[in-house]
Formats: sequence, C-alpha cells, structure tokens
Amino acid sequence: MSAADGPLPVVTTERPDGQGAFLIVCEHASNHFPEAFGALGLPEAARHAHIAWDPGALALARRLSEALDATLVSAGVSRLVYDLNRPPHAPGAMAAQSEVYEIPGNEGIGPDERLRRTETIYLPFHRALHDTIARRLAQGRRTVMVTVHSFTPVYFGQPRAVELGIIHDADPAFAKAVLAEAQARTALLCRMNEPYSAADGVTHTLRLQATPYGLAHVMLEIRNDLLADDSAVAGVATELAPVLSAALSAMTQTQTEKAAS
Amino acid sequence: MSAADGPLPVVTTERPDGQGAFLIVCEHASNHFPEAFGALGLPEAARHAHIAWDPGALALARRLSEALDATLVSAGVSRLVYDLNRPPHAPGAMAAQSEVYEIPGNEGIGPDERLRRTETIYLPFHRALHDTIARRLAQGRRTVMVTVHSFTPVYFGQPRAVELGIIHDADPAFAKAVLAEAQARTALLCRMNEPYSAADGVTHTLRLQATPYGLAHVMLEIRNDLLADDSAVAGVATELAPVLSAALSAMTQTQTEKAAS
Repeated sequence: MSAADGPLPVVTTERPDGQGAFLIVCEHASNHFPEAFGALGLPEAARHAHIAWDPGALALARRLSEALDATLVSAGVSRLVYDLNRPPHAPGAMAAQSEVYEIPGNEGIGPDERLRRTETIYLPFHRALHDTIARRLAQGRRTVMVTVHSFTPVYFGQPRAVELGIIHDADPAFAKAVLAEAQARTALLCRMNEPYSAADGVTHTLRLQATPYGLAHVMLEIRNDLLADDSAVAGVATELAPVLSAALSAMTQTQTEKAAS
Repeated sequence: MSAADGPLPVVTTERPDGQGAFLIVCEHASNHFPEAFGALGLPEAARHAHIAWDPGALALARRLSEALDATLVSAGVSRLVYDLNRPPHAPGAMAAQSEVYEIPGNEGIGPDERLRRTETIYLPFHRALHDTIARRLAQGRRTVMVTVHSFTPVYFGQPRAVELGIIHDADPAFAKAVLAEAQARTALLCRMNEPYSAADGVTHTLRLQATPYGLAHVMLEIRNDLLADDSAVAGVATELAPVLSAALSAMTQTQTEKAAS
C-alpha cells in the first residue's frame, strides 16, 4: 500500500481468466513514483495523501474481483505522474495543483514531457484495458465495467457526508440499478453523481472504454475513511459485491421485459 | 488498387509528420485478403466489388492528405475479413452476408476465429490510430478526424442519387460546417447522414476514437462512380480539400464567437 513496495508495472491484470461479467478497473490504485519521473518535488506526506492515489481502492477492487470472479485491471503509477482517468490534453492529467497541494514537478512541463508520460503510462494502461475488452467482445462475453475509486472525507476543509458515490457516463442504466440495490441492501449514504459527475471530467476511462461499445458501466466512489484497514475494506466488499450482482440481475430483467413488450 | 498488389500491412501511416489539423482515416482502403485468412470462398468478382472495400477511397484520402498536409492512417485488409468500422461483437465485423453476396468463409465462424481476427486486424489498426491521437493531444496539437469512405451507386438494385454523404457521431458541429461549405463550393448533391447514419452503426471509428476526446469529426461518403479513375479522384480531391479547410475555419470562428459572447 505504499511507495516502499518498490517498482510496479504500469498496468497489472489480475484474475485474467475470471468468468464473471464484471470487468473491474482501478486507475488510482498506487502511489508509486517510478524512478524515471522522480518524486515530482513532493514531500513524503504529499506522496501518501489522497492526491497521489485513492487509498483503499485497490484493496477493495481486489476483494470485489475475488467475490465476483472478475478480471481486474489496475495501474501501478501515482495519478500525479499521470492521472489515467484524464485524457492527455487535460491539465489534470499531470496536474500542477491538486486540492491544497502544489506539485512542483508538474509545473510548466512542456509538450515533450507530456508526450513522454503519455507514451510510457497512459498508452500502455489504456491499451491493455482496451485489448481485454475487445477480446471479450470478440468471444461474445458479457462485459460490465466497474471502476473503483475512493475520495477524501474532507476536501478544501469541508467534510463530505456522502459515503458511496455512484457515477455514470452516457448510459445511466446500470448506475441506477446499483443505487437502488445499495440503498436497499446497505446502510451507506449513497448518492448518484456525487461527490462529482461526468460533467467534471471524471469519467474519462468509462467514456474511452465502455461508452463506445455500449457497455453497462458504473464508477464507484467510496469515502476513504470507510477503507481505513483490511477489515474495513473486507466489510465494504462484502456489502458491495451482492449489490453489483443484484443490480446486474435487475438491469437484465428490466431490459428483457422491455424487449418483450 | 487490387489484391494483386501483394500483402499489405494491417495498418499504414502516411505523412506521419504532417502539420495540418486534419487526421485522415481510411478503414476500407484495401481489398487485400491476407493468406492467413484466405479468400473466404469468394469468387474474384466479389473480391473486387464494393462489398470487399471502398473503391477509390484510399486514392482520395491520399490526395486529401497531400493537399492538407494531413497524417493518413489506412488499413490493408478487406472489410470482409474484418470491417474495422465495426466493434468485435457486431455481426457486421465479419459479415456472413453483404448486400446480395454471401461470404462463405464468414458463415458460422465461432468465438476463436472472431478472436483471431480481432487480435490480428482490429486491435493493431485501432491501436495505431489511438496512439497517433493520444500523442497529438499530449503535444497540444489540434486534431480533426476525417474518415473517408465510398459507397456503391446501386444498392439492392436501387440507384442512389446522393453524391456526397456527410455523417457524424455525437457532435454534429464539424459535419454541419462541411455540409454548408460543400453546398456553397461544389456542384455535388450533398446530404447530411445519408446514405446512412450513426443509427445504422456506421460510426464506430468516430465513436471509439474521436468522440471520447471531444474531437471535431466527419465521415465522408463519396459515391464511388465519382472516383472511377485517378483523374476523377483528383477532381473530387480538388473540390473537397478547400471544403474541409473552409469548414474548419468557419467552425472555429463560430466557436470563438460563442466563447466571447
């Protein structure tokens, strides 16, 4: 769970032969700063803060992957080096400022450095994810994309009440089903498109990888104080895995009824 | 212009250092049937018909690339082996029937063969195109995608009057500008979203590669009897290159005025 774990590959695929319909994605899994890019002038505290990664997200994604027999694609580089949920021309892809932190190593970087990070981080990650999706589609396998994120409970000094944010790109069908099941089956304070939404530019992965293929999808945002240790993560996973399964069943039934009527 | 030209790579990038804003794409450039897949049981006449490729499209795309100093990405495999403008799960990606022709080699193919063609044709082509786009965006280069196609003048026995079809995916802004300039500057019979449109599933490349990045885009469909030989192609290119340039200027001006008001 820290940069001390040593170098990680840009992209890791776990449970590649998982038979479940879900394809789980974790773009902000790691706060690793590869040697090729350095620590961007950040003190250690900043490199461990939520600006560098989504604490707890990978642990949760792994437990969901296990519970749902789902392939998991995760990234091994801090979002501050390249935020994989942003396109290469977005300022936030290599942000010079994140919440109250300045990122010295991202200030004033030019086209060459942006190209280098795009080629070494963005392209390999999204290529691996796209390959996985295209192969599943070629084989006629159902694919529902679930991206797993966590958010900070206090942002610019303001506490956030929402515990589970359920966010969608163009097609809200699966997100609506997830919200209904989460409200029915858990005690979590759930909100649609909070603490932010597609309009804030946070659905790049879904827009690039799920929407063009018409894949059902959802982005889960869990408040990171609910993922503080392994036992907390296990508890959230135990709540969310059946939510996802039930939501898929409910959406499938609705679609079947619509098709028949 | 024929299968006799010998094996071609799956994807070719011409004018990679072109400085123009346009990125030209030609998915149906070739009627080449690579040895690995054979002739799909088709007689020679079918392998030269419009079902196998878009006759004249590559020649036109090359002239537009030259006139506009635009990078051109084209495919080297017949659309009957894999139609690169279709996703891997679409029946039309490896169609068993096309217009009045049956494609014996595509009948009853299973998941393994669909996966093989996806991995050897679809993925390398779209990877190369995506790499090109992401690199341009990282460098802050404006990118307007123009896909170049041709269509048969007679379809299921019915003649088609339209000469230039102008088709768009989610964002119609550039297509509208192209239509206005084509009507003002040429004698071509132009129509928006004819002879087919995004609703018919013909905008996969735009949806996969342009729309997720918010790139201005258009799919040009030229009736192939207007591209019968080199001199005809040159004439159409001479008409369309200034149409595209003027449309880009007009769209840019409209956007600038909107932003200022």
